Amino acid sequence: MARGYIRTLAGESSVDKERLDPWGTSTVKDYSRLQSEFGIEPVAPLLPRFKKPSPHLSRGIDFGQRDLGRIIDAVDKNKPYVVMSGIKPTGDFHLGTKMTADDMVYFQSLSKKGTVFYAVADVEAYADNGLSFEQTSKIATRNVADILALGLDPDRAVVYLQSEELKVMRLGTVFSRGVTNNMLRAIYGERQIGLYLAALFQAGDILMPQLKELGGPKPVLVPVGADQDPHIRLARDLAARYHEEYGFIPPSAIYHRLMLGLGGSDKMSKRSATSLLTLDDTPRDATQKISHAFTGGRDTVEEQRRLGARADICPVYDLYRFHFAKDDEHVERVYHECTTGIRLCGECKQEVIGLVKTFLESHHKKRDSLMNDAKELMVKSRNYLASTGN
Amino acid sequence: MARGYIRTLAGESSVDKERLDPWGTSTVKDYSRLQSEFGIEPVAPLLPRFKKPSPHLSRGIDFGQRDLGRIIDAVDKNKPYVVMSGIKPTGDFHLGTKMTADDMVYFQSLSKKGTVFYAVADVEAYADNGLSFEQTSKIATRNVADILALGLDPDRAVVYLQSEELKVMRLGTVFSRGVTNNMLRAIYGERQIGLYLAALFQAGDILMPQLKELGGPKPVLVPVGADQDPHIRLARDLAARYHEEYGFIPPSAIYHRLMLGLGGSDKMSKRSATSLLTLDDTPRDATQKISHAFTGGRDTVEEQRRLGARADICPVYDLYRFHFAKDDEHVERVYHECTTGIRLCGECKQEVIGLVKTFLESHHKKRDSLMNDAKELMVKSRNYLASTGN
Repeated sequence: MARGYIRTLAGESSVDKERLDPWGTSTVKDYSRLQSEFGIEPVAPLLPRFKKPSPHLSRGIDFGQRDLGRIIDAVDKNKPYVVMSGIKPTGDFHLGTKMTADDMVYFQSLSKKGTVFYAVADVEAYADNGLSFEQTSKIATRNVADILALGLDPDRAVVYLQSEELKVMRLGTVFSRGVTNNMLRAIYGERQIGLYLAALFQAGDILMPQLKELGGPKPVLVPVGADQDPHIRLARDLAARYHEEYGFIPPSAIYHRLMLGLGGSDKMSKRSATSLLTLDDTPRDATQKISHAFTGGRDTVEEQRRLGARADICPVYDLYRFHFAKDDEHVERVYHECTTGIRLCGECKQEVIGLVKTFLESHHKKRDSLMNDAKELMVKSRNYLASTGN
Repeated sequence: MARGYIRTLAGESSVDKERLDPWGTSTVKDYSRLQSEFGIEPVAPLLPRFKKPSPHLSRGIDFGQRDLGRIIDAVDKNKPYVVMSGIKPTGDFHLGTKMTADDMVYFQSLSKKGTVFYAVADVEAYADNGLSFEQTSKIATRNVADILALGLDPDRAVVYLQSEELKVMRLGTVFSRGVTNNMLRAIYGERQIGLYLAALFQAGDILMPQLKELGGPKPVLVPVGADQDPHIRLARDLAARYHEEYGFIPPSAIYHRLMLGLGGSDKMSKRSATSLLTLDDTPRDATQKISHAFTGGRDTVEEQRRLGARADICPVYDLYRFHFAKDDEHVERVYHECTTGIRLCGECKQEVIGLVKTFLESHHKKRDSLMNDAKELMVKSRNYLASTGN
């Protein structure tokens, strides 16, 4: 059931022989290479196992996985599993971050036995961005309220600050003794030690939910953007290396495609602010940004009517497909009208601006009403983790 | 006033062109090279500034320094200064560790404005030696009681566990972003990341006492064995690099010669247990170990009477010189009798065994009576550091 609006692999094959860069701004150009070269498996064969696939699944946005079957098994057998992710609390939630959050919320919702672990990397925010722990704590609370507004169930969620979680610090230190520089170079290329260090502590975040104090080994799913695969490989490698001592099960991962920034050239990322749409933007900001966005349109109306526009390089099309279309049929219609020249870029932008505005107004209301719940969740989590010993 | 028993530089000039290895077991063979190559300054010109030099100073055991004048200035002007050191709490205090402790106690005693900071590297003990935080906490308390028995004034001392001190973790992370791999390689050679990481957190320990929350920039003295100079260079380099942000004053250091292990070939170190004499040994253990120790004696009595023995390669002579001689004259007498063949190794060992036994018996009594004081000091320190915010 290949659908036209799922970007074909052929359309993306401009070859990028570089190593994946989890810290970069460039987008992934060749998703098929991730499969052949790094062993990421396709999601498609597993789709029939989902009763109600999420839009990310049904639209091919979640395109790849490692050991996702282990999570579906846990859901089917009513066994505990964890969905984990994290954020560096340096600013507003943007649409790239929202994609991970959407996956987190969806996979948590599949079973009452699913728990979310959410790591707030405040030490990194301090080291990299000079943000005080007070500042990051405020930002983090707001970020948590964003996820709650997106549907996270706080009753099965644990949010923690890196600076307060000794278990992660301990694991990171243990791992730093167990890896070799060659192993890190093979995964990340030659990097400065600060990045290696951040990666090792992130592996600590990913593997912490399997510690004995937290109920022991269990399936853990990490939803990530395609460019973050190096972190997954490191965590899986460490899980194997420390299996005897900790009993770690290799963490599973699901990979989503990267959204284009509004400038059209890079992925949407905090590192290129102008191309960023955030959950904090006012409807007015959003309108302006989208109005100025790059599109896949042709040079003239005549040409566009004749050749159709290029949805595959268009960040405005990505807004529909990744976030704001009402349903799959809506995405398909936009794609069809765009690529056959029925729809022009101006009207296409107007339509999506309407959808974005509606979403933002509703989201802001929800989030504001959830700020206290976010604080409560953070306090509850801290008490829970403290009770598991350090 | 060169004294015969101060090892001459000529006697130690077997050239070792290797980099200093703070993690190794080998001893330093050429102390003069530390001055010419690494810029460590001699202590001798500063000796007249000490009213009552410690045995380490008067016997040339503390042979080198960096910016020691800054500490003497603080003493003279009645300004605050800090003496800092640390330990990986993996076992008993041994005679090598005691040397650092003796320096710490002496420099604390020079002025009521001198405070000791003592870092217990429990995270490293966990990562490297698999010791639980419970185990290390016990060992650490015993180690602290050892230092109290050696004369530390608990009223001007702060002892902290690495695992509880977020300030150090934060500094270590900041530093990991500020150093380059080339800088670390230049100082330590090509090492695995775990050691680089340990070094960066140790720099955090050294520079923490200068944080605003702890009263701001001030002179800090780090007494170390000669092989630890790379850590001092890193901390001084980082102090300069982060001067603008934190106002760090480059930490001062005083370097002591390394004691020979009882086997005679390596330095005394936890890494070669057989050659180790610890503050936990029973008088009986100590007697046995010293009886079996390597000496600088000749092959036959006749030869020894004629040529004299070699004090400069003798770990038994080191026991007198570094720890157990009654005073400087005693060391001098032993050296003279040894090198002129008046004294034979058997009687020399018997004499020092008597001194070691007396010391151990007295030390064990003192230490046992100070275990509660050690616990109190750790609690008091934790409360103090918590009150300075995190």
